[in-house]
Amino acid sequence: MLLETIHHRPESPYAYPLELDQLRVRIRTKKGEVSGCRVFHGDRYRSEEEEEEVLLTQTASDLWFDWFEGVIPAPTRRVQYVFRLDTEENTWWYGEKGISQERGAAGVFHYAYIHEEAVLRVPEWARDAAVYQIFPERFANGDAGLDPEGVLPWKSNTPPKSDSFYGGDLKGIIDRIPWLAELGVNTLYLTPIFRSPSNHKYNIDDYEQIDPGFGDWKTCKAMVETAHHYGIRVLFDGVFNHSGSGFFAFRDVQEKGAASPYKNWFRIRDFPVVMSPQPHYETFADHIPDMPKLMTHLPEVREYFLNVAEYWTREMGIDGWRLDVANEVDAAFWRAFRERIRSVNPDALIVGEIWHDPGPWLRGDQWDSVMNYRFREAVISFFATCEWTAEEFEARLTSARMGVPEQAASAMWNLLGSHDTERFLTRCNHDRKRFQLAVLFQMTYPGIPMIYYGDEVGMEGGPDPDCRRPMVWEEEKQDRELFDFHRKLLDLRHRLAPLRRGDYRTWKVDGKKGIYAFLRRYQEESVGVVINNGDRRRSIRLEGTAWGEGAVLLDPL
Amino acid sequence: MLLETIHHRPESPYAYPLELDQLRVRIRTKKGEVSGCRVFHGDRYRSEEEEEEVLLTQTASDLWFDWFEGVIPAPTRRVQYVFRLDTEENTWWYGEKGISQERGAAGVFHYAYIHEEAVLRVPEWARDAAVYQIFPERFANGDAGLDPEGVLPWKSNTPPKSDSFYGGDLKGIIDRIPWLAELGVNTLYLTPIFRSPSNHKYNIDDYEQIDPGFGDWKTCKAMVETAHHYGIRVLFDGVFNHSGSGFFAFRDVQEKGAASPYKNWFRIRDFPVVMSPQPHYETFADHIPDMPKLMTHLPEVREYFLNVAEYWTREMGIDGWRLDVANEVDAAFWRAFRERIRSVNPDALIVGEIWHDPGPWLRGDQWDSVMNYRFREAVISFFATCEWTAEEFEARLTSARMGVPEQAASAMWNLLGSHDTERFLTRCNHDRKRFQLAVLFQMTYPGIPMIYYGDEVGMEGGPDPDCRRPMVWEEEKQDRELFDFHRKLLDLRHRLAPLRRGDYRTWKVDGKKGIYAFLRRYQEESVGVVINNGDRRRSIRLEGTAWGEGAVLLDPL
Repeated sequence: MLLETIHHRPESPYAYPLELDQLRVRIRTKKGEVSGCRVFHGDRYRSEEEEEEVLLTQTASDLWFDWFEGVIPAPTRRVQYVFRLDTEENTWWYGEKGISQERGAAGVFHYAYIHEEAVLRVPEWARDAAVYQIFPERFANGDAGLDPEGVLPWKSNTPPKSDSFYGGDLKGIIDRIPWLAELGVNTLYLTPIFRSPSNHKYNIDDYEQIDPGFGDWKTCKAMVETAHHYGIRVLFDGVFNHSGSGFFAFRDVQEKGAASPYKNWFRIRDFPVVMSPQPHYETFADHIPDMPKLMTHLPEVREYFLNVAEYWTREMGIDGWRLDVANEVDAAFWRAFRERIRSVNPDALIVGEIWHDPGPWLRGDQWDSVMNYRFREAVISFFATCEWTAEEFEARLTSARMGVPEQAASAMWNLLGSHDTERFLTRCNHDRKRFQLAVLFQMTYPGIPMIYYGDEVGMEGGPDPDCRRPMVWEEEKQDRELFDFHRKLLDLRHRLAPLRRGDYRTWKVDGKKGIYAFLRRYQEESVGVVINNGDRRRSIRLEGTAWGEGAVLLDPL
Repeated sequence: MLLETIHHRPESPYAYPLELDQLRVRIRTKKGEVSGCRVFHGDRYRSEEEEEEVLLTQTASDLWFDWFEGVIPAPTRRVQYVFRLDTEENTWWYGEKGISQERGAAGVFHYAYIHEEAVLRVPEWARDAAVYQIFPERFANGDAGLDPEGVLPWKSNTPPKSDSFYGGDLKGIIDRIPWLAELGVNTLYLTPIFRSPSNHKYNIDDYEQIDPGFGDWKTCKAMVETAHHYGIRVLFDGVFNHSGSGFFAFRDVQEKGAASPYKNWFRIRDFPVVMSPQPHYETFADHIPDMPKLMTHLPEVREYFLNVAEYWTREMGIDGWRLDVANEVDAAFWRAFRERIRSVNPDALIVGEIWHDPGPWLRGDQWDSVMNYRFREAVISFFATCEWTAEEFEARLTSARMGVPEQAASAMWNLLGSHDTERFLTRCNHDRKRFQLAVLFQMTYPGIPMIYYGDEVGMEGGPDPDCRRPMVWEEEKQDRELFDFHRKLLDLRHRLAPLRRGDYRTWKVDGKKGIYAFLRRYQEESVGVVINNGDRRRSIRLEGTAWGEGAVLLDPL
């Protein structure tokens, strides 16, 4: 056996609590080498004689590895455990000291104590969520009286510029909530709506006010209440990495220089504050003058923004936050954020923006999940550009899924596009069939599907700012077939619990034929999804599995 | 190349900041396969053209793997990077997406932002420290007036019982400080000294008082000041996992039951509180009635113990804490503890008791290092029982060293024994030569050597309580040769900076001959250590290395 490839560590994502008395463990082995895997476990202070045994299940594979998983009961919260791996020829023990045929030489892993802060508690409702992302300036104009000067006509066929305004607002969202309910989404994520001079509002000048071009406190409250009335939850966008240059604290520093009590809220090289040609202070990304980086690790800065977040959570009754540039803000801020927000709304969902490996942020104390851009990458390479085989596709999905706790994997925002990317249909080179396959996959794979406004009616658009065109509302310009396709799949998802809450198992992967099939199981019910990503009709043989045996095959689409 | 064995993750211990603008990266490859390794890096928001390149150094190997390491300059604190691995036949790229011969397909790793909380800052003095552990009840009796009733005569040749008292106290420690200075240690770690009915005092009844059998506030202050006068630092033992059953809060719960305001400080199944035959509340380990587990995750409990720790740190002017059962206390407590203690004494050293993989606690926000029991295990298997070959010994040391950031590895408390283990000389079956080899290794390997009181004069003792015999003070009963050996090695360590502060490289490992040789280098100076663990004289050939070329060989012992 290739021992060098076996991997486990007694911490997330290889060991993490589901509850205070349940520890889920995961072990990675070389593909095809291990036929059976068990874990022997007990309280850290008890003897080997009192230990118990759990049979692990092989839950996933990629091109190189297999994963086995199981749940260790931990009534005392203190766990020690050792794996036993069976191969055709031998039995191996694997513990903290290494891998050995002698149990004693392998040692044991210790998960010293299960603390509440390590239990990733994702709100129950998230398992049933379907998210719709709105870029408010471009979604719907409900109150022409709020339109900024120089507003452009609501036309979707020309690319916006980075400083264009079209007049979208919160009233527009309110008006369209019945339409969103008809589509079948039940969660809205709004990009920022606080006062800001830009159309995207990621440079916030006043965190305590709704942008006057979007509406006011009352409109916002009406929007949230209308949404709730329709069974739709609302998430705001939290921009705590940087403020706008008109933020009161930054203005104070601009005015008073080193004498400002807010000078440490930012990292300013020297005074007076210089904004151009290059800012003399740290900013978001690469010297963006109107996005000064916030020193959120300082208690007074942290407190200010926690109060902001608490205020909106409580006063507007929102259901959670999407967090901007979240991996550049300090972990202490996010820990305090989670504590504060959950104290106001124990059911608030917290989702970070992160395009890469999110492991460190999903260990129970920071966020529930992330915008799953790695999902988008995989879906592009398989469905849109067909660069990957089904095997490569599965491998990438598997390793992403195995890189986070199950609770987070089930709550990932599986997106095909966002305000920061080319639109998916455009990425598919306008091929609706490819797009539809991707949507089918998105709606059936573990995680929360997220639709970027307009994708569901066939909107096109290249990278930012082109992906931010005004929403197409004229029915004759909408792709109604696509809309119905989305509606049908969302409906199917809501009707079939396994698609929302089920475990996942790969069923069949056949790169040559372009077949990718998987099963979702929840309680006694299983749903199989069979995708033909190739360009012709195929006959395939699907083996019965532990889950699929004797299944009735239906084509509910 | 065996791609399945290559491993990196963009978090500690594979990527961690040394400073706010320096990121150390580490990559593990299959032994002998990679001839050269580079990392290409840049700011996350800049283009590939602006990236720079760092050549990594192979710093370690074990039986299966090689490790390469290097430091990425990160002036903007935001890093993306990709590894290039050269083998004899090919060049491979390794990034977040995987391993590929095409750079683009490999993707890049992201270390999104270097925050202060992720920089593990170990006090500078720790690099020069040599620790001596004192179990005060057994070290020296300086004030017979404090002796408890039924005190036993100070005799080292009979095993103590678990409830024996011999009368050791703080005055005894004060009296022996010149002797400790003569030995050459510069840091004392005292097991608990707060009021407690036991001889070990790990069940503390009053965290605000020195145990009257040990002395009072003034004696304690005099002890710390005398130590400081001799250039010796003092660390206390922090027992925050559990209290004693006489702790005021627990007594209150015993008296008032569910009506006590302290009832949530513990986890009590039902009221009234039952202590026997089995406690009805959670305790340390397995139902130990006089050690009720503390709910340190509750703000009021946390605050109480942070105040305790702050009080002693400030009022006694101590230099740090050793933390008892530290991996069973919640991480939030330790983060707050570090912040609080460092705000009082920025140079305080924080060392956890943990017998296993300490990785999660050594990421900058909790502790500086741990009591290195894994070091002890390795040293026993190689020097004491000779079960391991030199190759196995090196492998175990390497994987422990590579499992934590370098700052922590340099500050590990490398111990041969403690109040919780059999004494090392006893473990060596009384073989002084074996013991001496182990001491030589302990004094020259990276980390802080820790001497358990009495080991340096040849004390023997089996597992607790036998390892806690009264210190031997009669010179004729002391092994003076061993004492001199310790003194000489400590002196050598203090004279040769590479032994305290140097990087480490294995020089030669020859299991057949029992040879283990390594180099330490600091600035321009190198020290080589050659250990013959076999039972006869050997001729070996030591190759010149990048560090050893043209070296002058001395035998300073």
